[in-house]
Amino acid sequence: MSQYGFIKIERDFIKSIPNPQDPTPIKDLSLPKKQDGISSKVLEYVSTRLNKPTLNHSLRVFFYSRAIIKDQFPQWELDEDVLLTTCLLHDLGTTDENMNETKMSFEYYGAFKARDLVSKLTTDNDTDYADAVCEAIIRHQDLNDKGYITQLGLILQISTVLDNAGLEVVSKLIHSETLDLVNKEYSRDGWLGCFAQVVERENQLKPWGHTSSLGVDEFPQLVRSNKLKYNL
Amino acid sequence: MSQYGFIKIERDFIKSIPNPQDPTPIKDLSLPKKQDGISSKVLEYVSTRLNKPTLNHSLRVFFYSRAIIKDQFPQWELDEDVLLTTCLLHDLGTTDENMNETKMSFEYYGAFKARDLVSKLTTDNDTDYADAVCEAIIRHQDLNDKGYITQLGLILQISTVLDNAGLEVVSKLIHSETLDLVNKEYSRDGWLGCFAQVVERENQLKPWGHTSSLGVDEFPQLVRSNKLKYNL
Repeated sequence: MSQYGFIKIERDFIKSIPNPQDPTPIKDLSLPKKQDGISSKVLEYVSTRLNKPTLNHSLRVFFYSRAIIKDQFPQWELDEDVLLTTCLLHDLGTTDENMNETKMSFEYYGAFKARDLVSKLTTDNDTDYADAVCEAIIRHQDLNDKGYITQLGLILQISTVLDNAGLEVVSKLIHSETLDLVNKEYSRDGWLGCFAQVVERENQLKPWGHTSSLGVDEFPQLVRSNKLKYNL
Repeated sequence: MSQYGFIKIERDFIKSIPNPQDPTPIKDLSLPKKQDGISSKVLEYVSTRLNKPTLNHSLRVFFYSRAIIKDQFPQWELDEDVLLTTCLLHDLGTTDENMNETKMSFEYYGAFKARDLVSKLTTDNDTDYADAVCEAIIRHQDLNDKGYITQLGLILQISTVLDNAGLEVVSKLIHSETLDLVNKEYSRDGWLGCFAQVVERENQLKPWGHTSSLGVDEFPQLVRSNKLKYNL
């Protein structure tokens, strides 16, 4: 279960990391190359579907996650292939095609498509892998929940908030040199405007959707006013 | 869209019903008999899967919903077949079989199975129907969310809280004679203990799950201490 992150952790960012460690600079931008892994196939899949800004965002989220786990959660056994797969698929629901073919909240539709894909790509129809990815993606915008979440779900939340909102509660968990390296490799040019527009479009197409719980006006505003320095 | 409840409404029970009407006694316990409806097939499906207390709970949730809509949301165009289908399937994730075959939160797994079932039962693979049911079930325990939700999602939340927790914010929306009639027809004997046990089992099997956001100890306690008089 631990390789899939099916271990409970406090959903609240402060409770889950009560004693943050000083982050160390990470220089490793290699992608996992596990023999029976599926993340490289998932990368092929998303590369033809996500627009470039969203693809870059998804890769940054992976590298942030890996860096933060190394410093803040060194005891975790979360598999990197599972982590990369989840990061690559977490915004699958935001493609034009997927936004237009459902009235469901984008997180949920994306999560089900991700679950289907992982089921097809894994040998023996690995339901734990598929369920782990699905659960994390469904909850990746549950940013006000009390209680617990999976390790995989938590790190996805932390890293997406870091890339989209740049809040200090998460930016202090990663070294500025790591941020700089990742953002140089996977450019964030235009990302904030792009993502704010996605949020606005989601609220426009699906005003009943879960994204509205983050504040219909407040959330895009939070993203657009993100002043974190990602480059040195 | 309105027949599926894809219309936004405030998720908060007080904001969504700012001027509650005095409820009227409802005497109609007939089930919808729509020609191209699927709810009777859904009833057959759940009758062999849900235990009796959960089946009765699901039917009570339907009748509460219909009564509350009549008094509080008379302008809604939500289809009764869609409403019944959703109520019958909302706790599908709590069967022993389903609890044991996934590590996902029960709401999400149940929603996923419900979506599959509705897709198979509807002609032309009606994705709006399937998506509406799925969205409502995924969110049926999002009881602290701000923002909006679908009409179908709201009424499901209101009626499940009424049956499980008996809170005054929702019990005032229905007439005591309606509660009495529904609970005489679909006995609630042992329901609160049964449901509290389901919640505890969910938190035990899936401690990372979404149910934990309602309070691991607090939620079962709330259910067990429900003192609402359902019978006259």
